[in-house]
Parts: sequence; structure tokens; C-alpha cells
Amino acid sequence: MSAGSSASGEDSLIARYFKPLARDPGAFGLTDDSAVLKADGEDIVVNTDAIVEGVHFLPDDPADTIARKALRVNLSDLAAKGAVPAGFVLTLALRDHNEAWLSEFARGLGEDITTFGCALLGGDTVSTPGPLMVSVTAFGRVPEGRMVRRQGAAVGDRVVVSGTIGDAALGLAVLKNGAVAAALADDSKARDALVARYRVPQPRNGLALAVRDFATAAMDVSDGLAGDLAKLCGVSGVSAVIDAPAIPFSAPAKALLDRGVVGLETLIAGGDDYEILCTIPGNHMPAFAQAAQQTGVPITVIGTIVAGASSPRFVDRAGRDIVLQRLSYSHF
Amino acid sequence: MSAGSSASGEDSLIARYFKPLARDPGAFGLTDDSAVLKADGEDIVVNTDAIVEGVHFLPDDPADTIARKALRVNLSDLAAKGAVPAGFVLTLALRDHNEAWLSEFARGLGEDITTFGCALLGGDTVSTPGPLMVSVTAFGRVPEGRMVRRQGAAVGDRVVVSGTIGDAALGLAVLKNGAVAAALADDSKARDALVARYRVPQPRNGLALAVRDFATAAMDVSDGLAGDLAKLCGVSGVSAVIDAPAIPFSAPAKALLDRGVVGLETLIAGGDDYEILCTIPGNHMPAFAQAAQQTGVPITVIGTIVAGASSPRFVDRAGRDIVLQRLSYSHF
Repeated sequence: MSAGSSASGEDSLIARYFKPLARDPGAFGLTDDSAVLKADGEDIVVNTDAIVEGVHFLPDDPADTIARKALRVNLSDLAAKGAVPAGFVLTLALRDHNEAWLSEFARGLGEDITTFGCALLGGDTVSTPGPLMVSVTAFGRVPEGRMVRRQGAAVGDRVVVSGTIGDAALGLAVLKNGAVAAALADDSKARDALVARYRVPQPRNGLALAVRDFATAAMDVSDGLAGDLAKLCGVSGVSAVIDAPAIPFSAPAKALLDRGVVGLETLIAGGDDYEILCTIPGNHMPAFAQAAQQTGVPITVIGTIVAGASSPRFVDRAGRDIVLQRLSYSHF
Repeated sequence: MSAGSSASGEDSLIARYFKPLARDPGAFGLTDDSAVLKADGEDIVVNTDAIVEGVHFLPDDPADTIARKALRVNLSDLAAKGAVPAGFVLTLALRDHNEAWLSEFARGLGEDITTFGCALLGGDTVSTPGPLMVSVTAFGRVPEGRMVRRQGAAVGDRVVVSGTIGDAALGLAVLKNGAVAAALADDSKARDALVARYRVPQPRNGLALAVRDFATAAMDVSDGLAGDLAKLCGVSGVSAVIDAPAIPFSAPAKALLDRGVVGLETLIAGGDDYEILCTIPGNHMPAFAQAAQQTGVPITVIGTIVAGASSPRFVDRAGRDIVLQRLSYSHF
């Protein structure tokens, strides 16, 4: 991303909307085609996630929420890795040059840059005849060798999740105007809250240092709790038993589940949660819980890591296995 | 990018084609959602460039060339910044899951990873209903504070360009089957050479250390020599006088120019060259030329940096100004 003196449309677009956001010295005010990231003796954690119109967001989602989501899904990964945000680059594939849209996009992005202390370092704008796409590569810092991996969960560790699960999937369902929207026809507050969870994730960067200090393994929940836990367990060479009634749901989610409007799978295999899933050794749970409490991020123990190579078991109040038809959202 | 134990399509796709390419320890075999990049006390140079089907490559370009181009346009930026490749992440937006195509894509990418010593650290695959898009964020290393910027060209510096200019634009013209293709109807060797320059850029990473040691400013030529030079001059607060007959053209390009099949603008405002444009103080020219010769990358002095804020002047053999209708390719 660069804003030179040439009069090309791309350059003036960048200068107008993105240059004011690139305040980090390593961004060179977007006057260069590359940026400099200082490591300061730490490891750089690199994460890249893209969002596509019609797949990860809806065509009529507000522009500022699209910018926020693109950045936040990456910030969520950094949080789960125990990393402190250091900066990001942005690739924006646009069909056209809509000033009002870009202005709102840049406004949302600028606010999140400030909120999360994650500097815009550079980027690329390209034209596409197809759907809008926003690709972000984000950088974080951890002390050398301290990135929290998916691998590392050990038998006996507690399985912990932050926040509540399933709200974003319900928000998408509301926007798609099906049974969930009908069931909430009289509750605009619940509808708005769920839609907000879908459009603007709340990455748990406040919890990053506690995760770094106490978790044996961690990842963010992006493709559904069930499937993501299966991935974490698979890479760690373990399994898990999850107490389904312990999974934290918001009040609207719980009500929809109790009324039978949605099943458990909608909530735990729906994706887009951007909560942190991690495993904590039992003897570190009190310290982790205390650290989490200080950050204000709610956490819940939902189960235990066990030996085995099978998919994690979800059990009901009576200890019976719940059979899940699908574990996660998949693009293919 | 991750290849967990879940049976989702995205994961098995990644495991099959990309895991074998991710041999850097910081990639964790793509078992994690993030990667670690070691800075080793140097600055990390970050560059991101995306290519879109129908815009930067053609729908029937071979899959391996698309992978190579996506990586090489980024490697070219690193070279111009004086940086040594350290790794990259890849975002792949696919319409479908075509095994033959992916296999060829991964083969081309794998070969280039080895050729350029640039490790695959991670990535993201997303589905799109639209055109194929490949976004790469590449990382390089330079000693602290030593990234060569666009800014820094000084009055009196020589303007230098590597290789030849305009071949890729002619290659695209050949693929588009217009006047250039007709003029080369009997010369399949020239056609193939030009198309190869369009499809598979030859980034000048061999020249990176010489650029780092001697250039006051540098960038790669991606949007056309004329426009890119204007950007470099604009950011540096200078202008330039370019001796148009000195601009290095390949034999086919020169022949097409001499026959009047194409004008100068097609060559110097066409883009996709991925050569290095840099400015070298006169007293360092001998040392730079010698260093370049040792790397085997041809370089040519094409002009001089002068004071002023106007666009660079291109002058003919008689010293008359050549008026250019456009300077570069622009997406908008």
C-alpha cells in the first residue's frame, strides 16, 4: 500500500482513507511499498485470515463492521496464542471505488486500530469483478518460544472457554430471516445483540497474557466449539469429555435452546464465536481464574482432557453421550 | 492455515497440498492457526500483494504459474527493499476444490519456496463465489534501520533499472490476441518468452544486498516504469530526466517498437515488470555495477535525478521531451 505522487486512482484512494490510519513509524505513512516491523527481541506471531462477502459477512453489512470483523478475527487468533498485537497489513479487493463505503470502512478500522493498539503497517488494494474480500495478516509479540500452541493439551487439564458460545451463529440466523428471527420477532434487543456478535466479534485480547502464562494449549473458536476442540485434541494427541450443560450460553441462546427453536449443534458447531478455547492444568486453575477475573473476561470450565484419539465426547446431565451430526463449519 | 484432525474439507485440503511445503519450524507443520517468525535481531520487512483472476492473471493461466506469480510479486518487493526473504503466508480464495488444479498450484509454490529460500509459514483458504484470488504477505530481514525506501533519491543520483522493461505487458498483449500477437504470428519463441515474463516474473532477489548497500531509494517496477519512477521521485521530493533510448528493452520488444506495432507507453507504462528501479549516487556507481555483475543481474543507467516537483521527463535522442498519455496501470 503506498500513496505516492502519481495521480492513479489507487494511490489517491489510499492516501485519502488509509494514510491517516498508518501512524506507526514502520508504516512510513504508506509512502513505501513495504513496512518495517520491529521484533524487539521477541518472537513475531503471524496470523492471516480473510473474510469474503456472502461467506463471512453479508452484502448489506455496514462497511465499518466489515473492517472491524476483518481485523478482529485476526486479533482473536493473536489473543489465543498469548500474543500482544503489534500491527497488521490489509488487502482489500474491491469491485468499485465507493467513497461513502470506503469512508465508513476506514472509520471503523481506525477506531479498532486505537481500541486494540494494533497499527496499520501497509496493504494492497486490488480491483475484483467478484465479491468484496478483506484479507488481514496480523502480527503479535510473545517472549521467545512462548507462543501458546494448539498442541500441548495434557490428560487431566481443564477445558476452558471464554464468554458465551453460539451467539454469532444465532445472529447470522436472525439476518437470514428463518425460524430464529421468527422466534425473536418480539425481542429486538435480543436480535440486535445476536446480530452484533455476528458482525463485530469481541476478541479476547485482554485474556492473552493469562493464556500465555497458564494454558498448555489454546486456539480461538472460529469454526464451532465442537470442531475446534476436536482439532486442538487431535494435534495434542488427546481427547476430551465435555459437560454440555456447562457450556456457557447467553440468555437469548439458552431461551432458544430451551424452546427447541435451535438444537445444541447450531450453537456449538456454528462458528464465528471468536472466544478463546484453552486447556489449563488443574493446579493452575485458581491462578488462571484470578487472572481472568482481573481482566473482566468471563471464563467457564466445560470439561476435562482425557486420553484417547477419538473425537471429544459431549455428555448430558445424566452422563449420556450426545451425538453430533456435524462439528464445525467448513468452506468445502 | 491449519491441518487438524477434523475431517472438514478445508483441513484435509491443507494437509494434503500445503503441509508438505511448510518445513520451517515456525510453521509448526501447519498444525496451528498462527506461525512464529524469528527476527534474530534484524528488522522484519513486511510486504503484501494480492493477485486476482482476470485482473493480474488470466483464467486459463497454468495453476503453477499463478502460485509462482503470487509469491514472486512479493519477493520482488523484498528484493527492492534490500531484504533477504524470510517467509510468507498465503490466503487462497477458491471457487471450488479442484484437486488437479491445487496439486499443480502446490507444486509450483513448492519449487519456488526452494528456489527463493522463502518458507511457507501459514495461511488461510476461503471459498468465494467470485474470481480466484491469491494474497501473499511476505517477510524479509534487513539489518536494523537498513530497509531501502522509496524516499531518499537525491539530486545527481543515477537512475538504474534491472533487466528489461515492457516484456510482461507484451506477453499480456500476446495472450489477448491483438496486434502484438498478429505481429509475432511467425515467432513462437518470442511469443513464449513474452508470455513467460507475464505469467512468471523473475524477481531480482540476487540484487538485494547490492541495492541495500548502495541505493539511496528503490522500488520494484510493478505498475509501469514511468508511473513507478514518478512515485519514487514524488516521495523523495525530486524529479528525474530519463534518456528514453537508454531504457533496456528485449530484442522482441525493440523490434515491435521499431516496427511501430507498439508505442513507448505500452512498454514503460504497462506494468508487471518486477524489475528493480533504484537510485545510486554517482560515486557509488562503479561499486554497485561490480556487485550487480557478480550476481549476474544486468543493470542499466537510464537517467539522472534532478531537482523539481514535476513528473520525470523522458527525452528522446535529440533531447526533446516525449509526452506520455499515461504513466502506469491503475486498478480504478
